[in-house]
Formats: sequence, C-alpha cells, structure tokens
Amino acid sequence: MVEETTGLWLVGARGSVATTAVSGLLALRAGLAPAIGCVTELPELAGVALPAWSELVVGGHDVAQTPLDKRAELLAEGGVLPHHLLDSIAPGLREVDGEIRTASFDGVQADVARRLAADIAEFRRRRGLSRVVVVDVSSTEPPVPPQPEHADLAALERALADPGRRVLPPSSLAAYAALTAGCPFVQFTPSTGIALPALDELARRQGLPYAGRDGKTGETLVRTVLAPMFAARALRVRSWAGTNLLGGGDGATLEDPAHADSKLKTKASGLAALLGGEVTAPLHIDNVPDLGETKTAWDHVSFEGFLGARMSLQFTWTGLDSALAAPLVLDLARLVAAADAAGESGALGALAFFFKDPLGSDEHRFAEQTRALHEWARGLG
Amino acid sequence: MVEETTGLWLVGARGSVATTAVSGLLALRAGLAPAIGCVTELPELAGVALPAWSELVVGGHDVAQTPLDKRAELLAEGGVLPHHLLDSIAPGLREVDGEIRTASFDGVQADVARRLAADIAEFRRRRGLSRVVVVDVSSTEPPVPPQPEHADLAALERALADPGRRVLPPSSLAAYAALTAGCPFVQFTPSTGIALPALDELARRQGLPYAGRDGKTGETLVRTVLAPMFAARALRVRSWAGTNLLGGGDGATLEDPAHADSKLKTKASGLAALLGGEVTAPLHIDNVPDLGETKTAWDHVSFEGFLGARMSLQFTWTGLDSALAAPLVLDLARLVAAADAAGESGALGALAFFFKDPLGSDEHRFAEQTRALHEWARGLG
Amino acid sequence: MVEETTGLWLVGARGSVATTAVSGLLALRAGLAPAIGCVTELPELAGVALPAWSELVVGGHDVAQTPLDKRAELLAEGGVLPHHLLDSIAPGLREVDGEIRTASFDGVQADVARRLAADIAEFRRRRGLSRVVVVDVSSTEPPVPPQPEHADLAALERALADPGRRVLPPSSLAAYAALTAGCPFVQFTPSTGIALPALDELARRQGLPYAGRDGKTGETLVRTVLAPMFAARALRVRSWAGTNLLGGGDGATLEDPAHADSKLKTKASGLAALLGGEVTAPLHIDNVPDLGETKTAWDHVSFEGFLGARMSLQFTWTGLDSALAAPLVLDLARLVAAADAAGESGALGALAFFFKDPLGSDEHRFAEQTRALHEWARGLG
Amino acid sequence: MVEETTGLWLVGARGSVATTAVSGLLALRAGLAPAIGCVTELPELAGVALPAWSELVVGGHDVAQTPLDKRAELLAEGGVLPHHLLDSIAPGLREVDGEIRTASFDGVQADVARRLAADIAEFRRRRGLSRVVVVDVSSTEPPVPPQPEHADLAALERALADPGRRVLPPSSLAAYAALTAGCPFVQFTPSTGIALPALDELARRQGLPYAGRDGKTGETLVRTVLAPMFAARALRVRSWAGTNLLGGGDGATLEDPAHADSKLKTKASGLAALLGGEVTAPLHIDNVPDLGETKTAWDHVSFEGFLGARMSLQFTWTGLDSALAAPLVLDLARLVAAADAAGESGALGALAFFFKDPLGSDEHRFAEQTRALHEWARGLG
Repeated sequence: MVEETTGLWLVGARGSVATTAVSGLLALRAGLAPAIGCVTELPELAGVALPAWSELVVGGHDVAQTPLDKRAELLAEGGVLPHHLLDSIAPGLREVDGEIRTASFDGVQADVARRLAADIAEFRRRRGLSRVVVVDVSSTEPPVPPQPEHADLAALERALADPGRRVLPPSSLAAYAALTAGCPFVQFTPSTGIALPALDELARRQGLPYAGRDGKTGETLVRTVLAPMFAARALRVRSWAGTNLLGGGDGATLEDPAHADSKLKTKASGLAALLGGEVTAPLHIDNVPDLGETKTAWDHVSFEGFLGARMSLQFTWTGLDSALAAPLVLDLARLVAAADAAGESGALGALAFFFKDPLGSDEHRFAEQTRALHEWARGLG
Repeated sequence: MVEETTGLWLVGARGSVATTAVSGLLALRAGLAPAIGCVTELPELAGVALPAWSELVVGGHDVAQTPLDKRAELLAEGGVLPHHLLDSIAPGLREVDGEIRTASFDGVQADVARRLAADIAEFRRRRGLSRVVVVDVSSTEPPVPPQPEHADLAALERALADPGRRVLPPSSLAAYAALTAGCPFVQFTPSTGIALPALDELARRQGLPYAGRDGKTGETLVRTVLAPMFAARALRVRSWAGTNLLGGGDGATLEDPAHADSKLKTKASGLAALLGGEVTAPLHIDNVPDLGETKTAWDHVSFEGFLGARMSLQFTWTGLDSALAAPLVLDLARLVAAADAAGESGALGALAFFFKDPLGSDEHRFAEQTRALHEWARGLG
Repeated sequence: MVEETTGLWLVGARGSVATTAVSGLLALRAGLAPAIGCVTELPELAGVALPAWSELVVGGHDVAQTPLDKRAELLAEGGVLPHHLLDSIAPGLREVDGEIRTASFDGVQADVARRLAADIAEFRRRRGLSRVVVVDVSSTEPPVPPQPEHADLAALERALADPGRRVLPPSSLAAYAALTAGCPFVQFTPSTGIALPALDELARRQGLPYAGRDGKTGETLVRTVLAPMFAARALRVRSWAGTNLLGGGDGATLEDPAHADSKLKTKASGLAALLGGEVTAPLHIDNVPDLGETKTAWDHVSFEGFLGARMSLQFTWTGLDSALAAPLVLDLARLVAAADAAGESGALGALAFFFKDPLGSDEHRFAEQTRALHEWARGLG
Repeated sequence: MVEETTGLWLVGARGSVATTAVSGLLALRAGLAPAIGCVTELPELAGVALPAWSELVVGGHDVAQTPLDKRAELLAEGGVLPHHLLDSIAPGLREVDGEIRTASFDGVQADVARRLAADIAEFRRRRGLSRVVVVDVSSTEPPVPPQPEHADLAALERALADPGRRVLPPSSLAAYAALTAGCPFVQFTPSTGIALPALDELARRQGLPYAGRDGKTGETLVRTVLAPMFAARALRVRSWAGTNLLGGGDGATLEDPAHADSKLKTKASGLAALLGGEVTAPLHIDNVPDLGETKTAWDHVSFEGFLGARMSLQFTWTGLDSALAAPLVLDLARLVAAADAAGESGALGALAFFFKDPLGSDEHRFAEQTRALHEWARGLG
C-alpha cells in the first residue's frame, strides 16, 4: 500500500474542473490514461521531488450536492471525459465524494472561516496527511469593491468578527480559512481569493506559500506566446480584438456582466504589459449554452511592419476548458506541496506560467514563464 | 558627411525584398519612417556596436534590368511601399541602381565566380568600404542533388575549373564568390547557397562568418512560437496542416514543384524538431497571382489534452512578405558586419532567430532564439 | 452632349460612401473603371429602362465642409479609391461639390424641412432635372423613441410646426423634406429615416416610391445566403455569434452604444426570420480605429445534424464598406428613378435585395430577394 | 404491422455513410431521434407521396465483413452516432446486416453483373418489395479512362461478355446490375457509376430514373451558396482556394492521388460554372487520420469590388461527413422511389440539390436547386 501523505482540498469540489481533475487523477493512478497535459510529468521536471499521483488524497468543499460520479457522466456526454473510463473510476469518485463537505457561508464571517478551517483540519488529521494544498476552482465571483481592511490583517480580523460586516467575498474567506488551517492556497479562478495584501501578510506570517490567479488555459495562453513574437520582431501591434464563446456553467456565470468583469480584467491585464503600451483591445465573453464545455475564442490582431505595411493575424481556439484546467490543478497541487515542504512562503511568482494574472510576478511572456518555472522547480531539490 | 564604411551587396538586388530593403534604408536614413520591423533598433540591442543606417552602402548583382525606382513604384501599387515616400527616395534608388552589376552565369564556373568576386571587390575598393556583407535575396532555386565535391573544398575547386561540370547551383556559386572576395555571406532564401560543407570549410579558412537560411517571416515564425507552447503544456499535437497562398514573383517561382520543394523542406524541418516527433503535417504552397505581394497562410493544429480531449487551434496569417523580410535583411547586414568586425567565423548559430532552417544551430524555438540572439549581440561589444 | 435628366441628392454628400459613389460615377462615365459591384449593369437587368451613368447629376446636403476632392484623397490613402484615378476625377468632384448645400437643423422643424426641400427643388430646377432621387447616406443616428405623431401624418405636421417640439430625428426630417419636394427617397443607413407610418402615408399621398433600410453590404449579406442553406438542408442552427471590427467614422459613431443599437437591431432582425425561430445570437460592433475603412467580421455558427451531430461553420469577412456600399447607392438611384417614372409609390419591397431591414418586404433570403428584384425590374419595362 | 414496400439497397452497406443512414432510419422509425438533416421532412415537401420511414427495408452489398452493430459502435466513438442509441438499434442493425451480401468482382464482368442483380432481385422477392432503390455509397474509385463502349449500350454489353476485358469500373458495374434488375440507381459518390451514356441509354430503355453524383455535404455546399452571392452583387471573384482535411476511411482513400482526382474534379466542376468563368482555384485534400470522421475545410475567396477594391472572405467548415450524408441517402431513396412510382425515367435533374456534379442538370446554384427540387417534388403528386 502506498504511503499517502499530501492532501488536495478543492473549493468547488463538485464543479467541472474539480470533477475532471479527480477523474484524471484516478485514471493516472490506475494507469488508464497517459499524463497528457500534466506539466509536472515533462522530462524538464524529472528529478523534482513531487508527491506521486498515488500520494494525493482529495477532499473539498462545495455548495452543490450532485455527486462526483454523476457529474463525471455529464462530462462524458459533453465530450470532456471518455465514456470508457467511467466504470473504472466510479468507486474512486464515490470515495472522494465522501470527503466533500457542504460549505455554508451563513453567519459571522469569523465563524464561517473557523468552520471551513475545521473541515480541512479534520480531513488532514483523519487521513494522516503531512500537508493539504487548498485550490479554489469554484465559480467566478463579481469583482469586490476595495475596502481598507483588505490591506491590514489586524483590521481585517476585527471586521471578520463584526456580525454586521461581510468584509471578504467567499473566495477570500476560503483563502483565509486555508491559511489559518496552516494550508498553502492556490487561486485558480479570477475571483479575488488570496489576492489581498492582508492575506499575503497572513501567509507570510504563517510561513505558507500561495499561488494564483486565474488559470491560463486558452485564448490568453496563445496571446502570451504571440505578443512576445511581435515585440521580438519589432512589429507594432495596432489592435488586438477578442471574442469568447462559451457554454456550460462558466458561460452562464459570465453572462452576468458583474462576473464577466473579473474575467475580462485578468484577461486584459497581460496584453498591455506584453505589448509595452496600450492598444485597442476590445474583448467579449458571450454565453452560448449550446457549446457546452467547448470554448471557442477568436482573436484578430492588426499590426504594422516596415514602412507602414498593414498586416493581420487571426486565430480560432477551440478548447475544452475543464480538460485544459484539470491537469494544471494537479500540477499546482504537487508543485505547491513541494514548495511548502521546501519552506517557501508568500506568493510563488515562479508559478506565473499557470496564470493569467500572476501573483508575485510581472512576467506575462509564456516562454520566460516556462524557463522560470523549470529553474525554480529544479531548485526545489 | 557621415563616414560610410560597411557595404551591403545584394544578390538579386532588383527583386521585391531588395527593393523594399533599399527603399526602407533610404527612408530610415532620411528620418522619413520609424524603424518598425528592425530588430537591431530594439532597446534590447542598444549598445551593440553596429553600423549606423548612414554607414551602409548598397550594391549588388541581378539578371533583371528594371531599375530600382521603377520597381519601387510597382511595390507601392502592391501596397508594400507607401506612395508618399516615392519622390523622396527616388534619387537614392537611382544611386544604388548604379551600383548593380549584371550577373552572368555563362562559362566555366571558376571563371563565373572570379567575375562575381571581382564585382564585389571593385565595389569595396571604389567606395572605400571596410567590409561588404553579401546577402542572397534572389529567387528560390530547385533543390540540388548532392554531389561528393560539396563536402570537400579541394575537390570542389577542381570541379569548378572543369568546363564540363556545373557542380554548384547559382546561389552556391554566389556564396563561393563572396567568400573568395573576403566577404561574409547571408543565405536569406531557401536555396542551397552557403549550406554546403565545402563552403563552410572555405568560410572558416577565410575567417569569415556566415548565416542562413530562409528568412523566417510568416507562417513559420508563428509556428515556432506556437509549437513550444504545446510542448511546454504537455499537450500532444496530433496534426498540423498548412496552406500558403501567395502571388507575386515568389508565387510564380514556387508554382514549379521543383522550386517549391526547397521551400517546403525548410518549412517542415523545424516542426518535427519542435514537437519532438513526427506529426501528420501536410503543407501546400499555391500560386494565386491576384494576391500580389500579400501572402496568406492558414494552419490547422489538432491536439490532444487530458484524458484524450480533442481540441484545435487554427490561424490565418496575412502578411506582406517583402515588408517582413526587408528589415531583417538590414538587421542581418548590420549584425554580420559586427560579427565580422569581432573576428567571428563560420556559421553564426546565434542568428537562428532569423531563419526557418538555421545554419549552425538546432534551436527552432523562437523565444530561445530571441534570447540567444540578444546574449550573443551583447557579447559582441 | 448627353441629356442629363435624373438627379441624385445625397444626404451626407461628403461622407465616405457618398464620395466613393460620386468618384465611381465619374470614373464610370469617363470609361476609366469597369462597373464591378453595380447590380444594374448585370446581364439579368439588361433592357430595363434606367438612367445612363451620363444622365445622373449629383448634389446633396452635408454639415461637413471638407470638399469632395480632398475627401477622395483621404479615401485613396485608406485603400478605397485607387490613386491613379484622382487626377482624372478631381474636376468632376469639384463640380459636384459646388452642388452641396450646408444643412442646418436649427429652428422650428417645419422651417428646417422647408429649407431642405427648397435646396432640392432649386437643384432640380436649375439643372433641369426630370426627377431627383434623395438617398440618405449620412451617419447613423441613435434609435428614436416612438411617438404617437409618427403614425399620423396630420398630427406629425402639427408637431413639426410646434417650436417646442423636435418630433422627428434628422434622418426623418430629411425624408419628410424630400417627399414634400416631390422626390423619391432611399434610406441607406440604419437610421429611422422614412421608416415611419406617417411618412409612408405622405409618400403614398404624393405618389412617390421609397426604399430602405440599411444597405446590406457585408456580414449580413453573407448571413442571408448561409442561413437559408441550413434551413433548406433541415440542419438546426443552435447559435450564431458575430463580431464586427470597424474603424473610420462609422466605427467612431457606432462606438457609442446608443448609435450601435440601431445597427445591431437591423442586423439581428433578419436572422430570426431566416432561421424560423430564436437562436442564441450575440452580436458585437467594436470601434478599432486602426482598421480604417476596412471592416472585419467574424461569425461562428454552431449547428446540429442527423442524430444530434454537432458541427460548425465560421467565416471572416474583410471588406471595404464604402466600396461595397457606393455602387449600391448608384444602383438604387437608377432603380428608384425608374420606379418613379413607372408611377410606383410607397415602399418598394422588391428592393429588399439591397437592405438589412427591408421596408415593404418580409423576405430576407438573398436568393429570393435576387429573383424578386430581377422580376420586378424587368416588369418596369 | 406496417406495410413494408420500398427497398433501399446500399452498395457499400457496411461503410460509415451506410451505417449512419441505417442507424438513423432505425432511430427515426422508433421515434428516438428527430429528423434533423432530412430534407424530405421539411414543411415544403409535406404532401408529397413518399415512402414512410417504416416502409423502407434495407439490404446491400459490401466486400467488408465487420457487422453493422460493430461499425455503429466505432462511429459512436468517433462522435458520429450518440452512445445512448446503440442498445436500442442493435437488433435492427443485426437484421439489416443479415440482408447484406458479399460482392465479388471476380470473373467475366457480365457474370458479375448477373450475380449482383440476382442478389437484389432475390431481396426484392423475399421481402415482397414493390421496388428497390440502389444507392452507391462505397469508397471512391480512381477516374476511369474513357472507352468507346461507354457511349454505346450494345457495344458495352459485348465488352462485358468478353473475358479479357474489364470495360466498366465496379461502380458502373453496380449501376448496370441495378438497372438490369429493374431498379432505380443513385450515384452518391464521385465514382463514375451511372454517369456513362450507355447506362443512361439502358435506364431510359428500362424506364428507370437515376440520380447523381457525389453528395454535396460540406465545402461544396457552402460554395454553391456563396458563389451566387458574389455573382448577384456583380463582385468579381479573383481566386478561390480550398483545403480539405479529413481522416477516416475517406481520408485514406483520397490520400491516393488517383482517387482524389475523382473528388477534386467533381468539386471543381461547379465553381467555374457558378462564377461564369475561370478563376484561380487551387484545391487540396489531405489525409489527416487523427481527425477521424471530422472533416475540416478552409476556403479563401479573394474578390474585387467597386473601383478595384480588394476584399476577401474565408470560411472554415467543420463537419461530420457521415452525419451530413446519411439523411440525404434516406431522402434520395424516398424521392427516387417516388419518381419511379410516378413513371419518371433517365437522369433526375431536379435532384441537383443533392450533388456536387449533378447529372441531368447544369444548375449549381443551391437556392435555384432548392426551388427546383420543391417544385418537382410537389409535381410528383
């Protein structure tokens, strides 16, 4: 029997990304699927001391009740999971589903955080885990208006105890709970989560590493390889327009302009940085339910070359978002666990490779992010 | 009056790329256009000792007789050059045109080479140049069947003197002539040119640097940023299909399957290297005369992600090839001149950044090529 | 000397569409360009009694002062007009510019309408024209809130005389003025213009024909051929998403959501009709100034086939809007003049072929519109 | 129990198209799927006397032995058939599989034809069918060199009896056999099949209708709606380039240039007709096995508008060829059965709607084909 030592606690544990990640983990563990899409299995990272697939134990929070095996069937109909895996992984999915706790955000926020932290601590204790990495893969929240307490941990903790305040959005409350439970945290969605100075302060005080935010899985991934190309060739990008069509739960969430706003902000932040200045860059997200789990993005780049020559590049990306995100969630669990074991704390800028809006790094160029990741990981031991 | 010290000798000096390069050089020198597309003007290369625009003197060989100012008018109609520049640069174009010699390839090849070399030497002497960089921008040749003499300089020189042999294609004869005249050489087209072991031997014996081959200006440029993205994310590319539509002289040349073959070979060579194995990669070049100087490429990439998820990326590139190539020709003239001044000899692998089929390097990843170029250039002094 | 008998009065006579139309008319008249894009020159319409190019005399209203020959130069730089025509057509452009009157919308609306009508009548008289077709090609207005007077001519005329009311938007005031001056009217933009019951009443009372609205020149044109294809093959369209990138004055106008709303409404109206029901059809218009006169539209159609098979079609249209619209303006001038000569009055539904939101017709299928146009035109005599 | 009266005999009865058609027929009959993609179920054809789904009995020839239920499973994995249907239709598939006979093309061609005809006649007799429509959906053959006997039925029949001759390709031998068995014939593939004067002569002598050839399911379908759009708007198409990527058996067959040639010929034939003249129209078919049943086509159309304005339209079609073809096979079986019942004979030009290279019609415009189909079908009764 393998020694299971690392926990992965998923916030939003019954969502599409979580279900795909857990299904994949079970398939990898059973040797039923190759580790395609898993960066930590690349030769470049061979030799880094990471938890094995068999050493990851999964639990999590969710407000939804549909069990994981049922969710996996729905994802198979949507083309994200292969039908032929369902029978083999069903027992494992049921086991993980038994480790999912219902999150309740009712009551004073300090109490909510204590309950959330207690669930994680109980999971760690009961399963005998040396550490638990908490990863937020829940639905995107609307952007949060800044508050003074977000920048000051002591003030934040006072506000959390105030029954009349809701100073933190759920994603940040989950991050707070994780840190107080002594767990590293990964903000995989565009929600605020751990991206607040007060939580950075807490992480450093606790000696915990964290990473985020907003997994870079599709259009933005392509943008962060193409934009440096134009820059390296001294070509002047004049405009970069983008349209995203998506269905599924993500599409419905982002149909609400308030929620979409979070996403659009993290998507746009990199482009100006990459191109060294402002360009006209209209960007849309449309909810197109019939596309289901498939996300289609079209980008049109207009650029200027020698002597004013006008040229263009357009691309269409057709991806299955959950299938792109899930292996990164597993990669992040392994890498952040290793960082924690190595005693790192604070924002892990070397993980910018994984994110649209990297915490702890200003680097958006994908090739540079790749190199930084490899160097950092090899330096872990 | 500026001190003019570096010569640029263009093989194919009245072609589209040459005409655009010379027009641009004149415009840059007169401050009539920004250096968009010129890599050597980027901040990353500031401080490298390169010839100034005003220090470059241009001459060349061609078999065509249409003068440069007339060629520039045609390119303006094709959208490559702006109409408003024509009057300002016409005198400069006429001056350069006066430095173009008619190349004749009749007779024993050793004699042809001597005549070509004499033209270059005479240009250097008359204009008082410290060095002359020879750049081949002439029409693409069909691939050449390998011959034993291509690998042995002494044998090659015997064959050149044999009136019954035509052991070298014109592009390689031009490279041979350049080297014997003491000039560094750049193979900007897919033709064989300097890419023969015997010519490498000659370059090293002469202490001359060279670079090549096949300027990376469009579809392949994009491929060499996208392919490493898939690799870095452990995504498995299943097929990568490409279609190129081009008109102009290039389209007509490449309509001939024999000529297209050279181009298709250099285009394909990188993809397998980048993806770490063979993929289905059909590639076509179609002559579509009405597109004129505009080159349109469509690529369709099918890839597999986590648990067998099938996804795709497609892009359409619409570029003006001459406008993309011309600034690189100027960049190469400057960089190779600097390498020559610094005493480098043999294939300049650090210039892989510029080429589809880099000589002296196995690196096809554009971001790595960019970094290598910057490091090398800064090392020049 | 040809007998000039038909007037074309352009509302927005110095805009891009008007300038292109007038430039083209001058070029056609002088035999300097073929009639590409002119539907009335097709063999299918041979034999219809239409005014010859030489029989059209142009004037118009505008608030802008930049003269037509200057506007033509700007359009040549934008790639809409060929440089080589400019010298030949400059005298003709200056002559037409002399027939452009400054429109003022200050004061009581009834007085404004009288002044506008007087300008047109004076043009007709002075140039000895048998009739004048008025075509609105001015900038798109925001949608107008409905008012009771829009449905009742007598009430409308009372409101026009009320100094405290502005019951009609400028485009409708122009239409009212044209009709009171005894002129047929064409609403070529998405503005309200003649599309009000009270103006239909006036047109019928005056015995005048009219047509509109919103010239079908790009994305919508393609949609109205593709949508019937899906219907004829019993394929079920599940979603049809569209994005439009445009610069120029049109892009700036439509950047204002209020103005864009008019356009989006006329664009969407046809799709539901064509597909026989509602589909998810997000549609965006983005102002991308660097694209200038070029308009790029991307459409993504997701459809379902036999046994639930999911498939897609996507297209990218890259058009020069003014070049597409201008010949249609000339066609409409000829056809509406012929309809007027033939005694037709009211909305000319047979001209649905030209419009996104056809007045007098529910037919959006382009092939059916084409057939209806040909039959109607041949019936004119 | 329904009265089963019409037979559908599939040549290539175990191929992808046939398997999809039979699976769909079983699903339609059982009310398990809507008739999406079935033209004969459109309101426009309501009232035409066609065999009901329950009245079609299927059999066929094939050289392959993999049974239909196994083939259906493979197609479900390829995304063509939905998994949830498999159990319900398996018994029906096995029943149809029992009606499939192994075709042998060994021996004197006249004998082969007699054996093929006997199989069909025996099927008709045993199942008590009033008529059997034979549809060729087998793999595409290479083009056949013309022979004098192809134009003369008497000479053809002499050559068929000659043991030393193979005067007909298999598809034409199948057509000959069908006609001699008194059956109408549909050539659904690009193979020669019935498209020979001698077979037309035989069909007319036998009083049998036939239709063909090469089902219009994807890229060509789109072309035949777009090309008339350019023509109706007097826009001049300058080039129309196309690339097709396909996997599956079809991809492998068409990888062989000889087989591809048949396909490319039927695809190209329409374009010149539609555009009223020659245009540059390079067209490629690439075998990309990983795409499986999905067929992706990219077309790039360059066109000229008013005053020489250069514009373009490009589209990408992503279709499941078998899912597009199968309902048309069922439609054709019904319509050709009705034509036979109505006493029509010879090529049914009104079915041009279904084909890339219509027999008995010069009409390639899809909208006109649609109208012709509807009128003809309503005229049947």
